[in-house]
Amino acid sequence: MCAVCGCGEARVLRVERDILSKNDAFARDNARAFAERGVFAINFVSSPGSGKTTLLVETIKRLKGRRPVAVIEGDQQTSRDAERIREAGAPAVQINTGKGCHLDAHMVGHAFDSLDPPRGAALFIENVGNLVCPAAFALGEAKRVVVLSVTEGEDKPIKYPDIFASADLMLINKADLMPYVDFDLAACLAHARRVNPRLAAMTVSARSGEGLDGFLAWMETAEAGAGSA
Amino acid sequence: MCAVCGCGEARVLRVERDILSKNDAFARDNARAFAERGVFAINFVSSPGSGKTTLLVETIKRLKGRRPVAVIEGDQQTSRDAERIREAGAPAVQINTGKGCHLDAHMVGHAFDSLDPPRGAALFIENVGNLVCPAAFALGEAKRVVVLSVTEGEDKPIKYPDIFASADLMLINKADLMPYVDFDLAACLAHARRVNPRLAAMTVSARSGEGLDGFLAWMETAEAGAGSA
Repeated sequence: MCAVCGCGEARVLRVERDILSKNDAFARDNARAFAERGVFAINFVSSPGSGKTTLLVETIKRLKGRRPVAVIEGDQQTSRDAERIREAGAPAVQINTGKGCHLDAHMVGHAFDSLDPPRGAALFIENVGNLVCPAAFALGEAKRVVVLSVTEGEDKPIKYPDIFASADLMLINKADLMPYVDFDLAACLAHARRVNPRLAAMTVSARSGEGLDGFLAWMETAEAGAGSA
Repeated sequence: MCAVCGCGEARVLRVERDILSKNDAFARDNARAFAERGVFAINFVSSPGSGKTTLLVETIKRLKGRRPVAVIEGDQQTSRDAERIREAGAPAVQINTGKGCHLDAHMVGHAFDSLDPPRGAALFIENVGNLVCPAAFALGEAKRVVVLSVTEGEDKPIKYPDIFASADLMLINKADLMPYVDFDLAACLAHARRVNPRLAAMTVSARSGEGLDGFLAWMETAEAGAGSA
């Protein structure tokens, strides 16, 4: 239920601009709060059903004993994802957006206060499954990761360019299904680089564990880079 | 980039209400225009990459010689889907929504004028891949079909309830991948019926052709019902 519907009314555009600028201010507050706590925040965006929660569960298991983790979960309805995260051993807050189609920085700020993670934690924010609307809403994250599963097809980066243009890393997930689908990995990478020449990319399978060590290594490098920036 | 972001401002809510009521008026105009032309319009909604375009391509092939078909394609960017439809033998108009996250009735009205389909045509409208925002925007369609692929998981109907509540039929697609994923069909049906007790459902595979005759039969029955309503 979005204001950008091609009707081009000045009033609508003004309201949108106000919403985004207010969100940006909250996002700057969040970024400051994360930095003060030494928290490394990643915003995970994707289509519904690309495997974000399973990826987080497997990442949390691998980080056990190495660093604290906290998770903010976004969905229109249900608290299933937060429950799965808690079962994996990390504290989680579920945000239900109701009619809403994305997390915003204000919601995330409240969830962060309520999670109150220890110094040096990794904060994973799982956005509402949506390849369009979350693109425009900064949450104060240090890095943005877009997850694309191989079952979705290699053309998504050029069909939904904003979200790929705004990401730091593309995780190509469900690699275990590659033999059963027609997914052109080289074309996917070429499409993604066309909309974002600096986009890092790696192939993973949350189910088999393939590539997850590489993702953990990327996190370390990315955090070092984010800290020195 | 949506107005519903939990900020609860009266001004935002007013703009949203105006947008939706204007859209509803355009949708009524479209429904009237479709009926006058004897056109049976179906609005296809789903996540990105659930296989809507392949489903349409296979349906068009099966309708060849039986009835005329015309297609309206919605995507943020590219005209790839319209090209695939034209290769399958049906005229198609591509709507690029840019920053927008759904088709609206005004865009569809213009596309219908430009397609100018013959009497008795089936009009397939493929919405932007998004399980949230298209739910609230009627396009004047006679029926709404939500496509869910088995790779997305059985919990989507309860996590994104509005779009399943507003649909007439759920096509559970990519049935050919069922052996390779953990998809609980019975749970999916139970979840879907919880948000929409009247939702019809069938399992299909656009790739193998499984279930597509059943979908064509559903179309005939649904059109007869829609006509007599």
